[in-house]
Amino acid sequence: MRIVLIGAGNLANRLGIALSTKRGVQVVQVWSRTETAAQALARKIGCSYTSDLNNLVGNADLYLLAVTDNAIETVLRNAPLKGKNIAHTAGSMAMDVLNSFSDSVGVFYPLQSFTVSRVIDFSTIPIFIEANNDGMLGFLQELALSLSEKVHIISSSQRLQIHLAAVFICNFVNHLYAIGEQLSKEHQIDFNFLKPLLFETANRIENLSPFAVQTGPAIRQNQEIIDIHLALLEDHPSWKEIYHLISKDIALTHYTK
Amino acid sequence: MRIVLIGAGNLANRLGIALSTKRGVQVVQVWSRTETAAQALARKIGCSYTSDLNNLVGNADLYLLAVTDNAIETVLRNAPLKGKNIAHTAGSMAMDVLNSFSDSVGVFYPLQSFTVSRVIDFSTIPIFIEANNDGMLGFLQELALSLSEKVHIISSSQRLQIHLAAVFICNFVNHLYAIGEQLSKEHQIDFNFLKPLLFETANRIENLSPFAVQTGPAIRQNQEIIDIHLALLEDHPSWKEIYHLISKDIALTHYTK
Repeated sequence: MRIVLIGAGNLANRLGIALSTKRGVQVVQVWSRTETAAQALARKIGCSYTSDLNNLVGNADLYLLAVTDNAIETVLRNAPLKGKNIAHTAGSMAMDVLNSFSDSVGVFYPLQSFTVSRVIDFSTIPIFIEANNDGMLGFLQELALSLSEKVHIISSSQRLQIHLAAVFICNFVNHLYAIGEQLSKEHQIDFNFLKPLLFETANRIENLSPFAVQTGPAIRQNQEIIDIHLALLEDHPSWKEIYHLISKDIALTHYTK
Repeated sequence: MRIVLIGAGNLANRLGIALSTKRGVQVVQVWSRTETAAQALARKIGCSYTSDLNNLVGNADLYLLAVTDNAIETVLRNAPLKGKNIAHTAGSMAMDVLNSFSDSVGVFYPLQSFTVSRVIDFSTIPIFIEANNDGMLGFLQELALSLSEKVHIISSSQRLQIHLAAVFICNFVNHLYAIGEQLSKEHQIDFNFLKPLLFETANRIENLSPFAVQTGPAIRQNQEIIDIHLALLEDHPSWKEIYHLISKDIALTHYTK
């Protein structure tokens, strides 16, 4: 299977490098708006590259878009891919957004957060696929199974719900980590002190329901401590609001039914 | 060192059981308001128990309070511990709250979230101690070092800041997990799909700054996706508010300076 990888960001990097080691799959070209980015990734994969959408290889089996959501339509409007197999990798974009650019479209959504600097073991990652025809679905399935055993065919609307949940348990969680890091810095506390707690909070979810293991002042309805903490956040009105709102929601979730 | 453990909840359980295997440390008695709880923990430790504060063993080296913050003063008001070494284990209670109950007071604060059902490896947990006299500080240090290599002497005000950061990276993070779990349930999505992402989000913090690895629609300022997600949360006004507020704060944190 010959693949043209469109994009050279975090996901394109991790995906391109992972695919380059798989039998039966060949990334033949990388495109990026930025030529140096395309070149850098193409070097890692060992393939050609271009920053000109008119120079895309014509005979690939799949054109895989790993660009930011906003860029998908802009790229496709300028790429001559009518009649080709095109798929995007976005959590919250319906497959239909591709309809005006080709007859054969699909989605390839690996549920993970990618950082250029961090190697990802794709074998543990669920990959959600969708296609508007059986041939395309077969291509995407083959591609996904080359990386992971956890391949699931789901609709655009279910993928959207998964992405929404992912925003809470990944993007928003990470921002709370960043708040904890910043609060530590401001008070000369080594953020490393907090890491065993941070890891335990995640690891216990392997076998326990987060609802069942909620701890802290809010679930104990310890208003005295909550008020002390809110007072400490005077200089950070937005964090104070987050503290207040999540504490209120913990009480709401656990004490009303 | 002979210790009376006051409390039989999550922390008292994990702490009592961990201490029962240490040389030089002996938990001689467990007190709990509930006799059956005191008995159950005492059995695990192999010591005596009571639910009557007037029956506390008189000659212990340390009376360690592992009860909820709200209960600390109530318990001490009814316990004959004047002149004894007493310490609490709370993150956000100043050491001073113990002053009216004894001359020799301190704090023993292991920074972890405890669940009765989960065994905790104390050796990786930072323990923060504080005392109003050297003898007490020595006791607490010996006790802490029997469990962990990471023992730090800090003030009540620094401990409070650590606890505040811990509420964000543990209690609030766990609540976001619970929201993700509930959203999944409502849309017939297996929450296990989200776990590799959840673990990766935590694990990458071992070596990377959370600020540096923020991903998602909010940091990409993808208002179109944010609006789609907010619309999906119509039936959960409180989660919608949390989504809005954290997204706004991500933008605020990363794009203003």
